[in-house]
Amino acid sequence: MTQPKPAAISRFSLPHLEDVPADVRERIVAVQEKAGFVPNVFLVLARRPDEFRAFFAYHDALMLKEGGLSKGEREMIVVATSAANDCHYCIVAHGALVRVYEKNPLLADQLSSNWRRADVTPRQRAMLEFAVKVAVRSAEIEDADFARLREQGFSDEDTWDIASIAAFFGMSNRIANATAMRPNDEFYLMGRVPRPRPA
Amino acid sequence: MTQPKPAAISRFSLPHLEDVPADVRERIVAVQEKAGFVPNVFLVLARRPDEFRAFFAYHDALMLKEGGLSKGEREMIVVATSAANDCHYCIVAHGALVRVYEKNPLLADQLSSNWRRADVTPRQRAMLEFAVKVAVRSAEIEDADFARLREQGFSDEDTWDIASIAAFFGMSNRIANATAMRPNDEFYLMGRVPRPRPA
Amino acid sequence: MTQPKPAAISRFSLPHLEDVPADVRERIVAVQEKAGFVPNVFLVLARRPDEFRAFFAYHDALMLKEGGLSKGEREMIVVATSAANDCHYCIVAHGALVRVYEKNPLLADQLSSNWRRADVTPRQRAMLEFAVKVAVRSAEIEDADFARLREQGFSDEDTWDIASIAAFFGMSNRIANATAMRPNDEFYLMGRVPRPRPA
Amino acid sequence: MTQPKPAAISRFSLPHLEDVPADVRERIVAVQEKAGFVPNVFLVLARRPDEFRAFFAYHDALMLKEGGLSKGEREMIVVATSAANDCHYCIVAHGALVRVYEKNPLLADQLSSNWRRADVTPRQRAMLEFAVKVAVRSAEIEDADFARLREQGFSDEDTWDIASIAAFFGMSNRIANATAMRPNDEFYLMGRVPRPRPA
Amino acid sequence: MTQPKPAAISRFSLPHLEDVPADVRERIVAVQEKAGFVPNVFLVLARRPDEFRAFFAYHDALMLKEGGLSKGEREMIVVATSAANDCHYCIVAHGALVRVYEKNPLLADQLSSNWRRADVTPRQRAMLEFAVKVAVRSAEIEDADFARLREQGFSDEDTWDIASIAAFFGMSNRIANATAMRPNDEFYLMGRVPRPRPA
Amino acid sequence: MTQPKPAAISRFSLPHLEDVPADVRERIVAVQEKAGFVPNVFLVLARRPDEFRAFFAYHDALMLKEGGLSKGEREMIVVATSAANDCHYCIVAHGALVRVYEKNPLLADQLSSNWRRADVTPRQRAMLEFAVKVAVRSAEIEDADFARLREQGFSDEDTWDIASIAAFFGMSNRIANATAMRPNDEFYLMGRVPRPRPA
Repeated sequence: MTQPKPAAISRFSLPHLEDVPADVRERIVAVQEKAGFVPNVFLVLARRPDEFRAFFAYHDALMLKEGGLSKGEREMIVVATSAANDCHYCIVAHGALVRVYEKNPLLADQLSSNWRRADVTPRQRAMLEFAVKVAVRSAEIEDADFARLREQGFSDEDTWDIASIAAFFGMSNRIANATAMRPNDEFYLMGRVPRPRPA
Repeated sequence: MTQPKPAAISRFSLPHLEDVPADVRERIVAVQEKAGFVPNVFLVLARRPDEFRAFFAYHDALMLKEGGLSKGEREMIVVATSAANDCHYCIVAHGALVRVYEKNPLLADQLSSNWRRADVTPRQRAMLEFAVKVAVRSAEIEDADFARLREQGFSDEDTWDIASIAAFFGMSNRIANATAMRPNDEFYLMGRVPRPRPA
Repeated sequence: MTQPKPAAISRFSLPHLEDVPADVRERIVAVQEKAGFVPNVFLVLARRPDEFRAFFAYHDALMLKEGGLSKGEREMIVVATSAANDCHYCIVAHGALVRVYEKNPLLADQLSSNWRRADVTPRQRAMLEFAVKVAVRSAEIEDADFARLREQGFSDEDTWDIASIAAFFGMSNRIANATAMRPNDEFYLMGRVPRPRPA
Repeated sequence: MTQPKPAAISRFSLPHLEDVPADVRERIVAVQEKAGFVPNVFLVLARRPDEFRAFFAYHDALMLKEGGLSKGEREMIVVATSAANDCHYCIVAHGALVRVYEKNPLLADQLSSNWRRADVTPRQRAMLEFAVKVAVRSAEIEDADFARLREQGFSDEDTWDIASIAAFFGMSNRIANATAMRPNDEFYLMGRVPRPRPA
Repeated sequence: MTQPKPAAISRFSLPHLEDVPADVRERIVAVQEKAGFVPNVFLVLARRPDEFRAFFAYHDALMLKEGGLSKGEREMIVVATSAANDCHYCIVAHGALVRVYEKNPLLADQLSSNWRRADVTPRQRAMLEFAVKVAVRSAEIEDADFARLREQGFSDEDTWDIASIAAFFGMSNRIANATAMRPNDEFYLMGRVPRPRPA
Repeated sequence: MTQPKPAAISRFSLPHLEDVPADVRERIVAVQEKAGFVPNVFLVLARRPDEFRAFFAYHDALMLKEGGLSKGEREMIVVATSAANDCHYCIVAHGALVRVYEKNPLLADQLSSNWRRADVTPRQRAMLEFAVKVAVRSAEIEDADFARLREQGFSDEDTWDIASIAAFFGMSNRIANATAMRPNDEFYLMGRVPRPRPA
């Protein structure tokens, strides 16, 4: 039996790190220090420094901000909408973040296979339903969809966040799918095994 | 924040094991001894002993047989087609089996998010393409689909197996989705962490 | 004008009856004595005795049992869901059974072209709507779907039956489509012409 | 068990025949004399005499003309495309015509359940594939589709006919579906039972 | 850069006007005198005089009649449903008529890109929702759809008109798409620029 | 007849310009000076300065750069993919840019109704086909899609641009659809009427 060769990180060649502008390289080094490895999306996008900067600036504006949605909830939106777009990279990479932020080793796989079966609150279910509608049938969004979110206590700022996260990862999913971006092996296990408590 | 309660194992009540016919109970005990836990599909279907017997007889006939497809390949078909049907239970439970049989901690998540991105051989890719077509557009299957499998070295018996596995889990997926069958927590981690070699 | 040749019974070769295990052959003989001919599904599946046994055991458990659904209603589910899956064999073969059990020469063609136009009771319409949802969008089944069936007086056992019949024929449809299974000519006319009363 | 009441002929009230313009009434009388009953489409459309006249003028121009397609082939297009549109009336009514013109009691049910499984010539299969594409994805028709028809010996006039029949019944299907037009009971059996030869 | 050649008016050859029957030619001359040019649909269909006559008779019966729908509203239905069918010719040609009849230079582009975003009354929105359902999912039309129109004050005659216009242009769209019918350049600007008032 | 009120610019309130950070306000003023009006996307996004900055930085990196694709071609991708997403704002606003850059008053309406009918070169058609696939079925992108672009002379950098523009406007379309963003009236006519040459 021929053993299949793992796919490359991207259909496009990766830049040499020494050819990359200093600010881009610094961000890559910083993430490596924090995470212990460089998520492949940084390497794939570094090929285009201006797009790299805009992508991560947009990402940080939506995902790292304070607000009515927790960090874990933002990542839940990413996983459910990325599953709707069949985006291998984002499901695996952001699934890891869901597990870590929510301290829940099961939730990501629930969201990626069928978000309706996930162990979430009714408020989170409404959030996911709206996000997936933005992802797959955004032209049909209507006032009633906004009303349903308000009934669950979401503010206008929260609703903007949900819609924009679904939209931003709509872009990210398409880039990852077109480039055949490969998730790092590290993501698959992250957050699945509880860390031993220090003695 | 309200912590969401985990969903039940099934929308339908589970039978008491003492009310279950002896042969069904014996199969349940046997799987528990082998796996260390009882996969929920056994408990959910035990409500209907005749269907339980037929389901697992069919399952065993397709999944445990010798033939041109390895056990791991049969499970790969299950995961890819279950993902096409958004079946939470089968993706998680059979994803575990893919990892175990293939000794590959990454393959299941590749198959469930986008089988086109999985690290498989061209032969396996043809197998998956055919299986997913049986799962989602079976009325459009035509002679050319069979020819493509033959080009990859599949015999008529193999092709029957691929089609029948996709069809059988087409049934299984619908039962699991309709009953909201919940995968056991044990499946999520299975096959992800390499077992330490004995000293 | 070239006259087209009728298609074969299956894309796969049929077994010689003398090579088939005795219990399988006996079932085939029994159905022939009762129906006057052997429905092709028996011949196609006889190629795989274990699958043959499991298939018909499952079929009988769902279709021949007593319960809240009449035999005719069970066949109505088969025809409506097989139409959703464009399964030529099952529409023709089970359409015959709908006509016979319901003593209604029109109902099968109504169900196979558009179940919403069939002459059925509101209770049967709810049954068909649920069954078709299991057939084509099972991942979206939710509690509200179950509530609607309860409103029409269906018990939990009935609901299980509806879901399982839709699921089982979801499998059967895919096997028939993949094998290009041909319905026997006898099915087309069955139940269409009222039998003359004995003098 | 409540026996369901047969559906009405149309969601819209039918005109009294004495209120219908003479030419429309004459056409209705003529079809009744020829067929032995009045197909319901005549009664439903008589509500609008101008539309009635235009509808049947268009119909006759496409369906009764001489040309490269036989009358039976034209009706085959109607049945295959009406099935793609789930049009109960047209499948049943024109299925009868397929059986009569083709002297084939099986062909209509093959075409309505899955045209790919019908006993037709390769030329007819190309015709049906093109017609169904016009019916369901007409915006994607491209030069290659025309080339494929030419390879099968169809002239430009034939191709126009195929496209126009698919388009005309695209209209007819939508009118029948919106009005919930009911096919006459007589159509179901027509052409299924060979007439005894005169002694 | 190669400058692309404008597409032809139709995939089919156009008839010579002198070969066309007198009544067809007269209608073509009349429209030219009124509009200042001959819309290409007249030239494309003139190839088939009987179909030409039936097509325009049907068109006039639905689009020029008095009734509960204004001429502009009838054209609004055409644009919204033609957009659902991706029909280039009808969107451009009837978009011009929407602008002219409604004296609104924006409405056609709103309707063709997403009718839910158009500046219309709630009554018109209900009309468009029904029309688009007839265009794309007519088999699912049910009594509730009719009730919703009645709530908005539409009579049965109006409802018939809405359904029939959607159905007729369902045919027209398919003919235009199959023939690759090209809209006249004149349509694109028509109704966009307010005419200067006479001094 | 009630005259419908034009829809608001956005479902979300717009910020007061004096509350907007200086750099954002400067960009808004600059675009107003250049275009003569402020496209609504600037006002809608100004509510979120960080997202505003990232959005336009990304936009400029993809749309204003030098490379194998002309500015007009980049806008052609926007219109064709926005039509696939039914995005009213982007079709109207970027349709204007297609007309202006390509000096072609017809092309935008061709692209938005059915890109297959647009007057483009074979190279541009391949570009649009790839872009629309990224927009609607990105998970199915495969090596053969890249090969087809190379055959038409596109470099890897061009392909990245096509994919990224389709992806970026996939995000933009979803934001515009969710916010119900209204295109400025000025866009509709822009580029449709040839400017008179100076004497």
